[in-house]
Amino acid sequence: MTETDQLVANATKYFDNGGHDGSRAVRPAIGVAVVACMDSRIDLFALLGLRVGDAHVIRNAGGVVTDDTIRSLAISQRFLGTREIVLIHHTNCGLEGLDDDRLADDLQAETGIRPAWRARGFTDPVADVRRSIEALRRDPFVKEKDSIRGFVFDVATGRLDEVDAGG
Amino acid sequence: MTETDQLVANATKYFDNGGHDGSRAVRPAIGVAVVACMDSRIDLFALLGLRVGDAHVIRNAGGVVTDDTIRSLAISQRFLGTREIVLIHHTNCGLEGLDDDRLADDLQAETGIRPAWRARGFTDPVADVRRSIEALRRDPFVKEKDSIRGFVFDVATGRLDEVDAGG
Repeated sequence: MTETDQLVANATKYFDNGGHDGSRAVRPAIGVAVVACMDSRIDLFALLGLRVGDAHVIRNAGGVVTDDTIRSLAISQRFLGTREIVLIHHTNCGLEGLDDDRLADDLQAETGIRPAWRARGFTDPVADVRRSIEALRRDPFVKEKDSIRGFVFDVATGRLDEVDAGG
Repeated sequence: MTETDQLVANATKYFDNGGHDGSRAVRPAIGVAVVACMDSRIDLFALLGLRVGDAHVIRNAGGVVTDDTIRSLAISQRFLGTREIVLIHHTNCGLEGLDDDRLADDLQAETGIRPAWRARGFTDPVADVRRSIEALRRDPFVKEKDSIRGFVFDVATGRLDEVDAGG
C-alpha cells in the first residue's frame, strides 16, 4: 500500500461522512486569492479560517511570484472576481539558501538539459515577501491592486506576522 | 474592515488556540506532493486527511503542469524527499472552455502587452489529468515517477474519482 492509497482511502471517508458543502459557487465567496508556499506545515484553511468556497489557493515552492502565479491571479481576478491578495512565506523554508545556478548546473549535469526556469531560492522570507508585493504591484496583468498584503508564517509557533511593505 | 483583516483575525485565533503542531520537519512526513487546482472548494487537508507536516501542496489555476509546477516538484523531490505525486482536477472548473488566444488578445488590448504565458484552458478535466500525467512522466526534471496518479474531484458531491491514465 502506497501513501497515495491511504490518501484515497481518506478521501472516501470525506465523501462518506457527507460533510462536504456542495452548494458553494465557483466564484470565491470572500473574493480573496491566497499565494503561499507549498510547505507541508501550512494548513491554510485552518490557519485563515477558510470555509469551502471562500478563497482561491495558489501554492508553489517558496510562495514566489512567477509567470504561473500571475496567470492564476489574472484568471482569478478577471473571471472569478477576486479583489484581495494575501501572500504567505514562512520560516524554515526549503528555498532558503538554495542557489539557483547550482541547481541548474546539477540538473544539466544529470539530465543533459538546463532548465528554462530558475529555482527562485532566497535568503530572507521577509525581504522576499516585500519583493513579491512589489512584483504584483508592477505587473500589468494583476488588475486589482488595492489590497495586496504579505505575511510570514512561523511554522514552529503557528503565528502569522504581517510584513510592512511600505507604499 | 477588509476580508483580509478578517483572515488575519482568524490567524490570531489559530495561534491563540495553540493547536498548531510545531514539531514537524521541513521534509514532508509521508513523501507526497499534491498538485491541484486553486479552486476554493477543495480543502486538501480535509479531503485527503493530511496533517500538518505530511505533504507538499502545489496549486494553480487548473492544477495544470507548467514550468512552475515542474520547478516546485523538482525542489520537492530532490531536496525534500517526496516520491509520490497526486494530481487533482475537479468538476465545474473556471478553466473549462477558457480560450487561451482570446484571453491573450483581451489582455493585449487592455494593457498593450501580450502575456508570455498561456491561460491553459481545457474542455475536459479527465482528459487534462491524463495529459498532465503524461507531461510529468516525460519531464526530465521529475525524477521520481513510480507513483504519479490523477483524480477528478466532484465539487458538488465531495467525491474523488481516480483517472485511468494507462501505462
